[in-house]
Amino acid sequence: MSALSKTQAGYIFKKGAGHIVKAEVPIPKPTGAQSLLRVKAAGMCHSDLHVIGETLEVPTDGYVLGHEIAGELVEIGDSVNPEVFKVGGRYAVHGLNSCGSCEMCRTGHDNDCTGNESKWYGLGISGGYQQYLLVPNSHHLLPIPDNVSYEVAAATSDAVLTPYHAIKNSGVTPSSKVLMFGLGGLGSNALQILKAFGAYVVAVDVKPASKAIADEFKADEFYTDISQSSWKPASFDYCFDFVSLQVTFDICQKYIKSHGTIFPVGLGSSKLTFDLGNLALREVKIVGNFWGTSQEQIEAMELVSSGRVKPQVHTTELENLPESLEKLEEGKINGRLVMLP
Amino acid sequence: MSALSKTQAGYIFKKGAGHIVKAEVPIPKPTGAQSLLRVKAAGMCHSDLHVIGETLEVPTDGYVLGHEIAGELVEIGDSVNPEVFKVGGRYAVHGLNSCGSCEMCRTGHDNDCTGNESKWYGLGISGGYQQYLLVPNSHHLLPIPDNVSYEVAAATSDAVLTPYHAIKNSGVTPSSKVLMFGLGGLGSNALQILKAFGAYVVAVDVKPASKAIADEFKADEFYTDISQSSWKPASFDYCFDFVSLQVTFDICQKYIKSHGTIFPVGLGSSKLTFDLGNLALREVKIVGNFWGTSQEQIEAMELVSSGRVKPQVHTTELENLPESLEKLEEGKINGRLVMLP
Amino acid sequence: MSALSKTQAGYIFKKGAGHIVKAEVPIPKPTGAQSLLRVKAAGMCHSDLHVIGETLEVPTDGYVLGHEIAGELVEIGDSVNPEVFKVGGRYAVHGLNSCGSCEMCRTGHDNDCTGNESKWYGLGISGGYQQYLLVPNSHHLLPIPDNVSYEVAAATSDAVLTPYHAIKNSGVTPSSKVLMFGLGGLGSNALQILKAFGAYVVAVDVKPASKAIADEFKADEFYTDISQSSWKPASFDYCFDFVSLQVTFDICQKYIKSHGTIFPVGLGSSKLTFDLGNLALREVKIVGNFWGTSQEQIEAMELVSSGRVKPQVHTTELENLPESLEKLEEGKINGRLVMLP
Amino acid sequence: MSALSKTQAGYIFKKGAGHIVKAEVPIPKPTGAQSLLRVKAAGMCHSDLHVIGETLEVPTDGYVLGHEIAGELVEIGDSVNPEVFKVGGRYAVHGLNSCGSCEMCRTGHDNDCTGNESKWYGLGISGGYQQYLLVPNSHHLLPIPDNVSYEVAAATSDAVLTPYHAIKNSGVTPSSKVLMFGLGGLGSNALQILKAFGAYVVAVDVKPASKAIADEFKADEFYTDISQSSWKPASFDYCFDFVSLQVTFDICQKYIKSHGTIFPVGLGSSKLTFDLGNLALREVKIVGNFWGTSQEQIEAMELVSSGRVKPQVHTTELENLPESLEKLEEGKINGRLVMLP
Repeated sequence: MSALSKTQAGYIFKKGAGHIVKAEVPIPKPTGAQSLLRVKAAGMCHSDLHVIGETLEVPTDGYVLGHEIAGELVEIGDSVNPEVFKVGGRYAVHGLNSCGSCEMCRTGHDNDCTGNESKWYGLGISGGYQQYLLVPNSHHLLPIPDNVSYEVAAATSDAVLTPYHAIKNSGVTPSSKVLMFGLGGLGSNALQILKAFGAYVVAVDVKPASKAIADEFKADEFYTDISQSSWKPASFDYCFDFVSLQVTFDICQKYIKSHGTIFPVGLGSSKLTFDLGNLALREVKIVGNFWGTSQEQIEAMELVSSGRVKPQVHTTELENLPESLEKLEEGKINGRLVMLP
Repeated sequence: MSALSKTQAGYIFKKGAGHIVKAEVPIPKPTGAQSLLRVKAAGMCHSDLHVIGETLEVPTDGYVLGHEIAGELVEIGDSVNPEVFKVGGRYAVHGLNSCGSCEMCRTGHDNDCTGNESKWYGLGISGGYQQYLLVPNSHHLLPIPDNVSYEVAAATSDAVLTPYHAIKNSGVTPSSKVLMFGLGGLGSNALQILKAFGAYVVAVDVKPASKAIADEFKADEFYTDISQSSWKPASFDYCFDFVSLQVTFDICQKYIKSHGTIFPVGLGSSKLTFDLGNLALREVKIVGNFWGTSQEQIEAMELVSSGRVKPQVHTTELENLPESLEKLEEGKINGRLVMLP
Repeated sequence: MSALSKTQAGYIFKKGAGHIVKAEVPIPKPTGAQSLLRVKAAGMCHSDLHVIGETLEVPTDGYVLGHEIAGELVEIGDSVNPEVFKVGGRYAVHGLNSCGSCEMCRTGHDNDCTGNESKWYGLGISGGYQQYLLVPNSHHLLPIPDNVSYEVAAATSDAVLTPYHAIKNSGVTPSSKVLMFGLGGLGSNALQILKAFGAYVVAVDVKPASKAIADEFKADEFYTDISQSSWKPASFDYCFDFVSLQVTFDICQKYIKSHGTIFPVGLGSSKLTFDLGNLALREVKIVGNFWGTSQEQIEAMELVSSGRVKPQVHTTELENLPESLEKLEEGKINGRLVMLP
Repeated sequence: MSALSKTQAGYIFKKGAGHIVKAEVPIPKPTGAQSLLRVKAAGMCHSDLHVIGETLEVPTDGYVLGHEIAGELVEIGDSVNPEVFKVGGRYAVHGLNSCGSCEMCRTGHDNDCTGNESKWYGLGISGGYQQYLLVPNSHHLLPIPDNVSYEVAAATSDAVLTPYHAIKNSGVTPSSKVLMFGLGGLGSNALQILKAFGAYVVAVDVKPASKAIADEFKADEFYTDISQSSWKPASFDYCFDFVSLQVTFDICQKYIKSHGTIFPVGLGSSKLTFDLGNLALREVKIVGNFWGTSQEQIEAMELVSSGRVKPQVHTTELENLPESLEKLEEGKINGRLVMLP
């Protein structure tokens, strides 16, 4: 590391700025349980816009943005096992910055870590929009399968992981009938994952153009409006809603079977209202979902490695980040755009 | 049975009547899988008022009300195994009238039976407010432990079974911290059941007088207002809400831990609104609950038999039903009132 | 039914006979919860040989053999719902003859019914080797999907159901690595089911010829001897052993991961020995499996209907049963042979 | 720490010595994720004898023995969060030395960690029989409730944790009927835990004197021989066997209900044989158990703190360790003996 300069260019969040700010940031020296990653890919996400626009409340500022990160391990602290975390190895980052010692971490729910709340990578501590990333605890690093590129690994860390987490924990099997809403970034991956689990999938998206995605990833049926189908109410074991507006949630409530489960994965509405009589009488469950666990991220990368999930990824140089964010805001970006520092 | 008269007095629901109607109803002869029960106890429930007042939508009328039923088996059809269902034996009725062949019945969720929907005992088919009850399928009959009276068995079939079902399926253990709302009929039984499961229970009821119930059944803490306690938000593994107004549900959303579960068992509000960001970010679950399964009713009676749950029961003659319903409407009845035909 | 003759030819088990016995048996009239099925297909199974040869202990004799049954419903008793169980409809039989009222039946484990123990169809009560079958309780009847033939439905009722049950309850997902032994009747279906669940499957069979089956049904790897592979001990999440000799069980113990589960589905050895230190230290589970539930049989038929499982079935006339049993004993029958009455 | 001497007395395992060896060992300086604990209590365990006697295979030697450890935190490395791990605070040690980054650790099964296999505290790396213990990763430290002494916390870390783990993961509820064997160190704690879970417990111990323990901790029934009871085969939902000889395991196989689970927690026999026909036909499960997770150790201490479990603990000075081990070998020690350095 002696050859490394002590500072680098990074794109930080500055309250009141209204746009992402390029700044000279330090290249820290990892000690103890820390390690240093040379960032090879950093995915751009809508939540970046929410942070910059301050519509998502984030307590502090001054850190580098970017929470979908993959790179090469260049240095480890002296508490890090070099046989497990190999310098020169390729790793994705589990973006949750889990503490390892709260009840959630100890019970395998490190995506719900309460120890480092609001201190996620790129959303409280520095993330991927820079060349060198300090990893506070090396157990956040997850080995990337050989045949998965850095950019796909970065995109997998959220847009595949989030639907994988919801689906893995749902209990979906080849005997399940699933209704899903939304075939955008997360939804198109969700469809592929549901098919890998063997489920029968009825996909709904108001955009007629989404039929191409439904066809490509082998949805069993596609509609822009479920009422145009022959499905009756109370027909589905699971509803995965990647839109989560009241209108889609209401359809979920209507079409879910007794004892079924609704996963409002999208965040379209800040509040949703359920019919208690219907929920109670038919014993429906509503399950909150947030990102995914580190083990699930390993499994999500294996799904990608085996070809069962193909995230749609485009790339551009990191220096194009400011314009790219503008394009994202204008809705001009399809699929996942990943920055290459 | 030859000595039985062919008709009997029963209290039926008649649309438009506005009150329960005494009528001459037949004493059917059981055939096939059916059996005939001499009703010894029939619990009175608030939902009777909803049916009679037509605030609860019930498709048909003309049947005898009363869905908490216990009695003596007097005759069985020729498809019924006499070694399992013993003439002269004491049985409680699983009020759901489950069909035995829908997916819910086949998977052990006979409380969610979709085969006989809206045809429950006393809520679609004839129930307990008569002397002789035709049981359409004898597997609805559940043996009453020797030391449990008919009236307690009847009261157990709903007011113990409903909270037992929610608690049994929650995963509560002696390491769980539980917040519960409401110490009325169901809530006071829920408290006893939660303590039998070993949980730490913080009970909340706006009525200061409920402290006596909290003390009697060993709540670990009691408040009329949780904000008067030293508990912080995100402290409880489970919330059981036997009130289920938006105000109590909001407290549940605030005080539930990450990965915790809210059970809105009460039906105080027809609709409830949840904060999707909070639900998602902390992976909270909301679980609908309806009555309980036949096996759980057997287990609920065993809990009562062993003295771990003591339902509060009063009795009166069946002929006092009309006045008793009036008193119930006026809020003049404490605990469960059970009719003795 | 008036046109039916009162008796029919059936093939019964007679203690001491040493072979299956053709006999004149009654065509009963269904009453109550019973129904009458015109048998269209009855699968032949190795356990028939065990019964006839009296190597499997069966308490009584005098009943018609055959426990894999499908047919047309011709008459129902007066307790049977004609809208659910339709005369003229095509039904498979859940061979367990479950009672519907024991704890196992009430909790959805009707394959473990303790109410009618040792009174299964064709193994305690009369089964499928006759023209008309009396169904003691109509909830044993399961509708056959339109595109599934009677003979395939019959074969599905055991040779697909048994592996489906074990796999469904295992928790296998697309992230699971599975080791399986034996690609015979059950094993070849198990392989197809595991692939429907998305698992990575390493199949082992001592017979080199089984490679064709492994290839046809898309095993990820096939070996006649796992030690010839590059797999290391402690590599598999699940082991499904359709052989269950000590030698295969020992391989399971060695190759199963920590916290993994072994399913000794085959019955190759009457006793198996496990290493307690290994089981304890690595928290391995051993799970007993028996046939499957009625709901799982419905799901197994749906898997077949959707083309994801293709049971290998041959057919012959019922009158060829005696010779067919001889051929089965001599090992001259491949796949499932189904009798057509 | 500057005032600390650089070495201390410790009791180490030396291959071939045949007895525990007192030695001068270093007091390390914690760095990174490490911390240093002033040992206040170290429980003595039978497995110490197995290590010293070399009947338990341990790859290396030269480390301090003692795997039930509690003490005061005196120094932390620079990667350790001082708000979570407080210098001066009271902590118990999770003896598994879990790595935090293997699949087992990531999924909440840190008792099955495969990252640091055979490198447990006192069984591969240095443990509690010394004054100052180096903790390789501070997440092994678990806060001790105020009203729990160091010696009880140390004893809880194995003799309470092991049965708690097995019971917590079993699904025992107040409706469960449990058969347990052995009321020694683990068994007497298991009985208390089972009663905290509300189960009905039938305890069996060949020693008539164990009746006093059964009575003290409220076993529902006690026998020296289950055949002297009125219990029939297939009566228990769970069997917890703290003896695990073939004779007790056979009784478990006989008395377990269909779909029930056997937990052979004891290690009385190196191999156990099960009847495959019985296991399969009745769908019995056998579950391996090893120690417990770090979160469960926190919960076990809470059970002790609340008075629901009272481990039997005696204490002596650490310098009495050699004689104490001799007494343990001679069977002269009742309850748990905890060393005070």
